[in-house]
Amino acid sequence: MNEMGIGPEASFVLNTFAFLIWAALVMWMCAGFTMLEAGSVRTKNASVICLKNIGLYSIAGLAFYLIGFNLMYVDVGQLVGSFEFFVRSTPEEVALLESDDAQRAAATAAAVAGSDGYSSMSNWFFQMVFVATAASIVSGALAERVKLWTFFAFTAILTAIIYPIVGAWTWGLGWLGGDDGWLAGLTGAAFKDFAGSTIVHSTGGWAALAGAMVVGPRIGKFRADGEVKATPPSNVPAVTLGVFILWLGWFGFNGGSQLALASSLDAVAMSNVLVNTNLAAAAGVIAAISVSRTILGRVDLLAVLNGAIAGLVSITAGPDFVDHYWAILIGAVGGVVVVAGIKFLEIVRVDDVVGAVPAHLFAGVWGTLAVCIASGGNLVSQLIGVVAVGAFAFGASWLAWTALGKTIGARVSARVEELGQDTSELGLEAYPEFVVMPDQDDDAEFAAARAKEESAE
Amino acid sequence: MNEMGIGPEASFVLNTFAFLIWAALVMWMCAGFTMLEAGSVRTKNASVICLKNIGLYSIAGLAFYLIGFNLMYVDVGQLVGSFEFFVRSTPEEVALLESDDAQRAAATAAAVAGSDGYSSMSNWFFQMVFVATAASIVSGALAERVKLWTFFAFTAILTAIIYPIVGAWTWGLGWLGGDDGWLAGLTGAAFKDFAGSTIVHSTGGWAALAGAMVVGPRIGKFRADGEVKATPPSNVPAVTLGVFILWLGWFGFNGGSQLALASSLDAVAMSNVLVNTNLAAAAGVIAAISVSRTILGRVDLLAVLNGAIAGLVSITAGPDFVDHYWAILIGAVGGVVVVAGIKFLEIVRVDDVVGAVPAHLFAGVWGTLAVCIASGGNLVSQLIGVVAVGAFAFGASWLAWTALGKTIGARVSARVEELGQDTSELGLEAYPEFVVMPDQDDDAEFAAARAKEESAE
Amino acid sequence: MNEMGIGPEASFVLNTFAFLIWAALVMWMCAGFTMLEAGSVRTKNASVICLKNIGLYSIAGLAFYLIGFNLMYVDVGQLVGSFEFFVRSTPEEVALLESDDAQRAAATAAAVAGSDGYSSMSNWFFQMVFVATAASIVSGALAERVKLWTFFAFTAILTAIIYPIVGAWTWGLGWLGGDDGWLAGLTGAAFKDFAGSTIVHSTGGWAALAGAMVVGPRIGKFRADGEVKATPPSNVPAVTLGVFILWLGWFGFNGGSQLALASSLDAVAMSNVLVNTNLAAAAGVIAAISVSRTILGRVDLLAVLNGAIAGLVSITAGPDFVDHYWAILIGAVGGVVVVAGIKFLEIVRVDDVVGAVPAHLFAGVWGTLAVCIASGGNLVSQLIGVVAVGAFAFGASWLAWTALGKTIGARVSARVEELGQDTSELGLEAYPEFVVMPDQDDDAEFAAARAKEESAE
Repeated sequence: MNEMGIGPEASFVLNTFAFLIWAALVMWMCAGFTMLEAGSVRTKNASVICLKNIGLYSIAGLAFYLIGFNLMYVDVGQLVGSFEFFVRSTPEEVALLESDDAQRAAATAAAVAGSDGYSSMSNWFFQMVFVATAASIVSGALAERVKLWTFFAFTAILTAIIYPIVGAWTWGLGWLGGDDGWLAGLTGAAFKDFAGSTIVHSTGGWAALAGAMVVGPRIGKFRADGEVKATPPSNVPAVTLGVFILWLGWFGFNGGSQLALASSLDAVAMSNVLVNTNLAAAAGVIAAISVSRTILGRVDLLAVLNGAIAGLVSITAGPDFVDHYWAILIGAVGGVVVVAGIKFLEIVRVDDVVGAVPAHLFAGVWGTLAVCIASGGNLVSQLIGVVAVGAFAFGASWLAWTALGKTIGARVSARVEELGQDTSELGLEAYPEFVVMPDQDDDAEFAAARAKEESAE
Repeated sequence: MNEMGIGPEASFVLNTFAFLIWAALVMWMCAGFTMLEAGSVRTKNASVICLKNIGLYSIAGLAFYLIGFNLMYVDVGQLVGSFEFFVRSTPEEVALLESDDAQRAAATAAAVAGSDGYSSMSNWFFQMVFVATAASIVSGALAERVKLWTFFAFTAILTAIIYPIVGAWTWGLGWLGGDDGWLAGLTGAAFKDFAGSTIVHSTGGWAALAGAMVVGPRIGKFRADGEVKATPPSNVPAVTLGVFILWLGWFGFNGGSQLALASSLDAVAMSNVLVNTNLAAAAGVIAAISVSRTILGRVDLLAVLNGAIAGLVSITAGPDFVDHYWAILIGAVGGVVVVAGIKFLEIVRVDDVVGAVPAHLFAGVWGTLAVCIASGGNLVSQLIGVVAVGAFAFGASWLAWTALGKTIGARVSARVEELGQDTSELGLEAYPEFVVMPDQDDDAEFAAARAKEESAE
Repeated sequence: MNEMGIGPEASFVLNTFAFLIWAALVMWMCAGFTMLEAGSVRTKNASVICLKNIGLYSIAGLAFYLIGFNLMYVDVGQLVGSFEFFVRSTPEEVALLESDDAQRAAATAAAVAGSDGYSSMSNWFFQMVFVATAASIVSGALAERVKLWTFFAFTAILTAIIYPIVGAWTWGLGWLGGDDGWLAGLTGAAFKDFAGSTIVHSTGGWAALAGAMVVGPRIGKFRADGEVKATPPSNVPAVTLGVFILWLGWFGFNGGSQLALASSLDAVAMSNVLVNTNLAAAAGVIAAISVSRTILGRVDLLAVLNGAIAGLVSITAGPDFVDHYWAILIGAVGGVVVVAGIKFLEIVRVDDVVGAVPAHLFAGVWGTLAVCIASGGNLVSQLIGVVAVGAFAFGASWLAWTALGKTIGARVSARVEELGQDTSELGLEAYPEFVVMPDQDDDAEFAAARAKEESAE
C-alpha cells in the first residue's frame, strides 16, 4: 500500500466498480439511439427500428463474447489475435472465487497481482458496450429501407470482425509480436484516441456511410429535379429523449475510458473528462442553434440535437485536459461540422435518416484532429489514424454490404418500403390506434420504383 | 485492516455506496415497467396504468417501511418477525451521527463493528426496491380491467405481507428460533436464489396469475368460437424503452445482490454477475427472434422484448459463475419458455396483457431450476423452493384477490371497460389531442356483458 | 490514514467518484423536466419545449462555467466573488496531472492536502447540474407562450447571476471578508438548506412566478366569466416518465449533497438521505391521491405526479435525520400543499402550465420550514432565508423579465400562440404524422387577442 492509503486490493475494487457503473451508463446509450431513431423515422417504420436496436445490442454482445474480444485483445504474436473461445476470468480470479477462508488472503493477493488493476470481466463488459455503440450508429443511417436480416448479418460482421480489428490497432494488444497495436506504436508519436472518436464513432460512421451508398436513398428522398424531400421526425419528444440519454451515457463512455479510478490522479482526470464532455456538448448545442439560425433563418431542432451529439463525439478523442475553454471550442466546431455535414450529404445525395454520418463520422474526424489542440496529439499521427481506420472500416463495410446485397439482398422491395416495414416485415404497427396522415407526395415515385422492380424480374 | 489495504471502514463505505447506486437503478425499473405497460395497453387505459405504477411504487415503499421489512428481516425467535415499527439506523450508527469530533473515532469503530458490513438503511433501501419490482409485475398482467383501488389494496397486501413472508424463508432471518429462513436451511442443500428468480419474479408472477384468474380476461379477448383477439400495443417505442430500462435496472438488481463490493472476491463476482446478466438477456432476445420466426413465420417484436425480460429473469437465480456460455444457454431457454408460455396462456384462456406471467413466473421457475447447471444448486431443494413459494404466493394471492372481489369488487363494470378506465375512472385521457381509431370489433361482446351485468343486479 | 483504513487519497477518490456519479443522475433530471413538459403542453408546442430544455441545460452549463461558479464560490473579501474566468483544477491538481513517476507521490500528497477532500472539478460538475435544475423549473411554468430567445436570455441571467448570488448566501464562500455566506452565518442559528429546497427549487419557482406574472396567462386559460379552462397534458405517459426520471435523479440531488462519502458517518448519512427522499416522495403521492379524491371526487393523475415532486422538494432542505416517519409527514404535507397550490394559482389567475410554482416554490417553502421538525432548524433563521431569497429571486427575476419584455419582447404574438410555437417559431411539428383534433374552444378568444394586438400597433 502506498503511504496515502490506497492498497492494491482497494485499487482493484475501485477500478472494477468504476468500470461496471460507467459501462451500465454506456449500455443505456443503446436506449438513446433507439429513442432517437424511433422518433426520427416515419411512424410506418418505428417498430422495425425498435427491433433492430434491441437486436443489434444482443448480437453485438454475443459476437463480442464469441469472437470480437479475442480478436481485439487476447494474445500477442499472432496475425489476428488468438481465438481462445469463451473469454472468462483469469485463472487467479477463478481460484479466488473458489478459495476457502484459509486460502482467501493468498488468492486475493494472487488475483490482484495477476490483474491489470481491475477484474478482467469488468473490462470485458466495458469494452462490449462500446462495440454496441458502433453498431447503433449504423441502424439510424440506414433506417426505413434496409432489410431486417441483412442488417442483423452486417451487425454480426461489424461487431465480430471489423470493429475489433480497428480497435486492436490502438487499444488492443499487438499482433505479430508487438506489444501495442500499430497505431498506438507509430514511430514518432502515438495515434491518440482517448475514448473513440475514430475507433468507435468514425468506424460506425464509415460502416453507415458504406451501407447508405450501397443500399441507396429512400424512394422519393432525392427527386429528379434536384429537390430534397424533407422527412421530419415522427416523434420529436422521443428524439429529444434519445439525445438526453446519449448525453448521460457519454459520461460513462468518456469517464470510464480513463480506465482507472483508484488514485488522485485518475480521480482528477476523470473529473476533467466529465466537465469537458459536458461543455463540448453544450457548446455543440449553442453552435448548432446559432449556425442553423444564420444559415436556415430559423432554429432547426434536429440540427441542434445533432449538435449535442457532434459536440460529444468531437471531445471523445481527447477530453483529458485542464483548460476547459478548449472543450467549448472543440464542441462548438463539432456543432458547425454537423450542420454543414447534413447539408453536404444532401448535396451528394446520400440519404442518412438521422444524420449519423455527420454526427459520428465527420465530427469524429474533427475530434480526432482536435486532439492536437489541447491533448498533445501529433497531427501526422492523427491523420494516419483517421485515414487508416477510414480506409479499412469503409472498405470492409462496403465489401460486406455489397456481398450481403448480392446474396440475401440489402434492400426491401419498393412495395414494402411504401407500406412501411412495420406492416410488411413485422406485422406490427408502432402506433396502431392513432390515425396517421398518409403521405401521398411519393405515390408517383413509388409507382415508378415498383414498375422498375417488376421489369427487372 | 488486511494486508491488501481495505480496512473495515473502507469496506463499510464501499459496500454501502454499492447498495445505494444499485438500488437507484432498481428503482428505475419501475419506470421501465410503467413504459412497458403504458405502451402495451390500449390508449384508452394508458393514463390509469401510469397512475397504478407510480401508486404501487409509493405504496410498496411505505408498506415495506411500516410492516414488510420487519416481517422479513428483523429479529429471530418469533413466529412472524418482530413488529418493531419504524425501522431505523442501528443505535451505533445513530451514535456515530450524533458524535462530536472527539467521539468520532470510537463511534466509527462501534458502528462498523456492529454492522453487517454496510449501513443498515442502505440495505433497507436495496430491499425496498425489490418489493416494488414484485408489485410492478402484477399491474401489467391485470391491466385494462382491474379496479384502481382494488389494485392498490392488493399491492399493500402483497408488499406488506405476502412478499416479506416468502422472502424471509430464504433471505430473512429465521423465525421460531432458527438462524436462517427454512428454505435457506433445508437439510442437505440450501435453496438457492441469488437475486430472486423465485422470490421476487415468480412471487410477482404468481400474484399476477391469481389475479388474472379471479378477475377474468378482458371482454372480447377470448371469443366463444375459440378465437383469441390480438391486442397489439398502442405505443411500441414506449414498450421498447421500457425493456431497455428494465435491462439497465437489472444490472443493479443482480449486481447489488452480491451484497458486498469491498473485496477482490466481491468485485470479481459482481463483474461476472453483470456479464452473465447481459449475455442471458441477449440470448433471450436472439432465441425469441429465432423461435418466433420458426413458429409464427415472422418475428414478433413483443415476443422478442419479452425474450429479453425472460433471459434476465432466468439468470437471476444464479448469475454468479465463470463459464459465461451457460448464461447464453440459460437465457436462450428463457426466451423459448416465454414464447411458448404466451401461447400456453392463450390456450388456457388466461388474459395477461403484457406477458408478465410467462416472463416472470415461467422463466423464473426455469431460472430457479437452472441454478443446478452452473451455480451448484440441488434440484430437489430448488424444486421444494419453487413449489413452496408457488403454493403460498398463489394461494395467498388468490385469497386476497377473492376477498377483495367479494368486498370492494375486483373488476370494473363492462361500461367502464368499454369506454376505457382513463375516461371513466380518471377523467384524463392519455393522448387527448390525437385522433384515435375506435375499435368496433368488440361492440357485441360489450353489449352482451353489459346486459349480463344488468340482469345480475 | 486513520486506524479504520481510509487514507486521505482513498477519501479523495471516493468523494470525487460520488460527486461524479450523483451529478450524472442530477443531469438526468433535465431529461425528466423535458419529458414532463413535452407531455404537459399541447402538441402544437411540444417541439419548442424540447428545444428550450436542451438549450437551457447548455446555456446553464456555459454560463456557470464562465460566470456563475466564480460569482458563487470563488474567493473572499470581495463584493461579488472574484471573476477569475475559466475555472480549472487547482494548481496542485494540475501539477499532479503533469507529474512523472518520480514526482507522483509528492504531487499526490500535495493535491490531496490542497483540496477540500475531492477534486475541484468534480465539485464544479455537481454544482453546475444544480443550476440547470433551477432553470428547468422556469421553462415548464411559462410554456406555450414565452418567446424562445427571451427564454434563453432569461436562462443566461438566472444561471450566470441570480442563482449564484442566492447560492452564495448559504453555500458559497463569504463576500466582504466573511468566511461564510451571510445566511449560513446568521447570528444565533444558521439558515439550513441541505440540498436546496429554497436555494434551488424556490429560486427556480420565484423566477417562474415572476415570469408567469409578467408574461401573462395563455390566451383562453382564464375566461372573463371566471371559468378556468382545463388544459390536460397531451401525452400522459411522457409526463409520468418525466416524474420517474426526476425521482431517480433526486437520489443524486440529495445524496450527493452530503458532499462526501468516504467515512462511515457520511455513508450512514447518505443512506438516510436516500431513504428519506424516497419516503417523502411516496408520501407525497399518496397524500395527493387522497386529497384529490376528497376534494375533486376523483383521483387527478397530474396532481398525483406533482405530489411526488412536491414530496421530493419538501424533503430536500433537510433529509438527514434518522426517524424516517418524519419524512412521511413532510412529504405528505408537501403533497397537500401542491394540490392546494394548484387551486390557489387558478384562483389568483396565474397560469403555470405544469404546476412548477406549487411543486417547487410552495413545497420548497414548506420544506425549508420543515427543517425545524427533524433536522434542527431554527424557525426564525429559516423564515429569514425564505424571505430573503424570495425577495431577491422574485425581484431580480421580475426586473429581468420586465426588461426583456420591453426590449426583445417576452411573449409571442396571438397568432403564433394560436398556431402553436412549433409551426410558427420552429417549423417543426412534434408529431407531424398523427391527426390532431383542433381545439376550437378558444377561437373567439384568439380572435379578440389578435384584434387587440392589431389595434395596438
